[in-house]
Amino acid sequence: MADAVLFEFLHTEMVAELWARRPDPSPGGQKTSLSVLEGMGFRVGQALGERLPQDTLAFREELDALKFLCKDVWVAVFQKQMDGLRTNHQGTYVLQDNDFPLLVRMASGLQYLEEAPKFLAFTCGLLRGTLNTLGIKSLVTASVAALPACKFQVVIQRA
Amino acid sequence: MADAVLFEFLHTEMVAELWARRPDPSPGGQKTSLSVLEGMGFRVGQALGERLPQDTLAFREELDALKFLCKDVWVAVFQKQMDGLRTNHQGTYVLQDNDFPLLVRMASGLQYLEEAPKFLAFTCGLLRGTLNTLGIKSLVTASVAALPACKFQVVIQRA
Repeated sequence: MADAVLFEFLHTEMVAELWARRPDPSPGGQKTSLSVLEGMGFRVGQALGERLPQDTLAFREELDALKFLCKDVWVAVFQKQMDGLRTNHQGTYVLQDNDFPLLVRMASGLQYLEEAPKFLAFTCGLLRGTLNTLGIKSLVTASVAALPACKFQVVIQRA
Repeated sequence: MADAVLFEFLHTEMVAELWARRPDPSPGGQKTSLSVLEGMGFRVGQALGERLPQDTLAFREELDALKFLCKDVWVAVFQKQMDGLRTNHQGTYVLQDNDFPLLVRMASGLQYLEEAPKFLAFTCGLLRGTLNTLGIKSLVTASVAALPACKFQVVIQRA
C-alpha cells in the first residue's frame, strides 16, 4: 500500500525542513542547502549500492552500470524505469525521466520552475553515490525544461 | 531489492543532518531537533493516513485504529508487524516492538541508550499523524529499556 510513497513523503519533508532552517536566504545559503541534500543523497546511494547483489559490482562496461541505474535502481526508488539513456561514448551520459515522481506534484505551473533544483539535488547525489560504490567516480547534474520531465547528466571522472 | 531499506537510510541521514546543523547543543537545542523530527513524522503520518483505503477511515472502535497501526502501517513502513499491543481500556495503549528497525544498528551497546530518543521522535510523530487522519487526537511518547526493543505509549486525547 503506502510504502511506495513513503520515500516521496519523507523527501518532501526533508526539502521543506532544510529550506525552513537555512540560516541564510541568499543564493549562497541556497547553494549550501543544495549541497547538503546532494550529500545526503550520495550517502544513501552508497548504502543502496552496497546492498546490490555482488555480481553487479563487477560490471565490465561503464554502460552496464548506467543501464543498471536506469532500470534496477530507478525501480527500487521510484517504482518505474528511466525513460531514456543517451551517451556521447566519451564518458557523458544523459538519463531522461519524462515524469519524475519528485517533480510531479509541483508540475502545475511554469512559475515553479525555479523551485525545481531543490527537488533534484538529493537524486543527483543518489546517482553519484551508487556509481561510486560501483567504482565509478562521476559528476551528476540535473536540468528541467518542462515539468515534470527532467534530465540527469552524468560525466564520468577518469582517474 | 533495496526499496525496503530506502526509508531507513533516509531516516538515518535526516537524523544525522538535523543533529549536525542544530545551532544549539544544549538540552534546549536537542529538544528543538526532536520536535522538528516529530513534526516531520506527523506530516508523513498524515499523508500516509490519507492514502489508506476509504473504509479504514470509519473505524468504529478506537482499538481497531490501534490494531491498524500495529499491522498495516507497521508493515508498510518497517516490513514487519508490531510485537505487542496492550491497553488499560481507558485510552492508553502501549505498542511494543522487540526489534525496532531504526534502533537495530545502534543496538551493539548500552552506552548508546542515551542516543535512542532521536531515533524514535520521527516514528512517534508518524503514529500521531496517522491517528490524526483517522480522527483520533493523541499524545505519543517512546521509551527504551533494552536496545533494540522499544515501547510507544499512545494516550488518546478526548475532546
